[in-house]
Amino acid sequence: MESPSLALIELLGVVAYGELSGFFRIAADAELAPSLAESIRMAELAHVEFRHYSLISAHIQSLGVDPEVAMAPFVGAFDGYHERTKPADWFEGLVKVYVGDSLATDFNLEIANLLPSESQQIILKTADSSSHIEFAVSTLKSAMAIDERLRGRLALWARRLVGEAIAQAQSLAAEHDGLFELINGATMNGSHTEGASELVGLDLGRAFIRLTEKHTQRMQRLGLAA
Amino acid sequence: MESPSLALIELLGVVAYGELSGFFRIAADAELAPSLAESIRMAELAHVEFRHYSLISAHIQSLGVDPEVAMAPFVGAFDGYHERTKPADWFEGLVKVYVGDSLATDFNLEIANLLPSESQQIILKTADSSSHIEFAVSTLKSAMAIDERLRGRLALWARRLVGEAIAQAQSLAAEHDGLFELINGATMNGSHTEGASELVGLDLGRAFIRLTEKHTQRMQRLGLAA
Repeated sequence: MESPSLALIELLGVVAYGELSGFFRIAADAELAPSLAESIRMAELAHVEFRHYSLISAHIQSLGVDPEVAMAPFVGAFDGYHERTKPADWFEGLVKVYVGDSLATDFNLEIANLLPSESQQIILKTADSSSHIEFAVSTLKSAMAIDERLRGRLALWARRLVGEAIAQAQSLAAEHDGLFELINGATMNGSHTEGASELVGLDLGRAFIRLTEKHTQRMQRLGLAA
Repeated sequence: MESPSLALIELLGVVAYGELSGFFRIAADAELAPSLAESIRMAELAHVEFRHYSLISAHIQSLGVDPEVAMAPFVGAFDGYHERTKPADWFEGLVKVYVGDSLATDFNLEIANLLPSESQQIILKTADSSSHIEFAVSTLKSAMAIDERLRGRLALWARRLVGEAIAQAQSLAAEHDGLFELINGATMNGSHTEGASELVGLDLGRAFIRLTEKHTQRMQRLGLAA
């Protein structure tokens, strides 16, 4: 078996640990749920993240790489993100699930385009959680309909989440050679870089525009300015 | 469909919420893990609890009862138990997984004998977690081999966990009519009680002896006095 490139393993490691840390965070934030019904919805969401993590972890293993080794470089960044974005209450927790989970799904769809076929199939399987977060949307809309101040607070909160996520993504790319080459090789010369020979390059500018557009649409669904 | 007895629904509700609260607690206690490898093991354990919860919840639903309604009466007791037994560090967390998960499995095996066939099959499926907790045993043994004071502290901690669990079980039985009738009907006259017509009575004395014996064996495996 040809050994996978550093860029591929780094991409898979990022996605795997993103799902795993999402699992832990959603399970913990379920404590904020006002009743059993809502905490069950959160447990179900956390479970979906765990299933995604398991799929990617098994795939990394099948490429001959220890999943823990692939994920380890990204633990600090994700844990730092979650540390800096602890929801103050149940509604902030729901916005975080909605914004964060959706951004992660969109990010995964973008990078799926860069990957060799088998890895691509795995990543596409992890982009199925949108139906599970409808309950976040409906709960938030009902709550904001009767509390205008909540709407303002949650709009600020959503912007902070996106800002933290972008800052995190930038420093991840800057600090990891495989990710850096993949992104900069593609944006600087449009061709494949040496370190990521089986990967297609990412057009970072366009990807960023697409991610931002989708985020804006989601905020509009909630009745929030992005 | 004949409607299920109060005692059956209460038993299933207790077991379902026990698994769900175990899921949340193990996921939260994974924060104490010293490294990624250990936090992954905890995530896997939490995931097993969630699968058990899902099985029982779906079964309750199939009996025509809302699982949330069946679980709701037991939320306070389990949450209280977890609140009073928050591990102070990673090793206490592992002992809690080992002692608590095993006691729950043994308890489920005991009550499985009381249930109609279909419910029995479901409960037996939830008694499969022992292979997943072997890592707790080996990690604890290694740590105690090099720290004799840890051994003393963890022996005390395990006794406290069992004490709290028994106190909780007693108050659950005392406060819920179906569970009360099932247990007392069986121990007082050895026959089936009216409120639990399709259930076989529990011989509480013998069950308690079996649970205690198994706990003692587990403590011996760790090299701890029960």
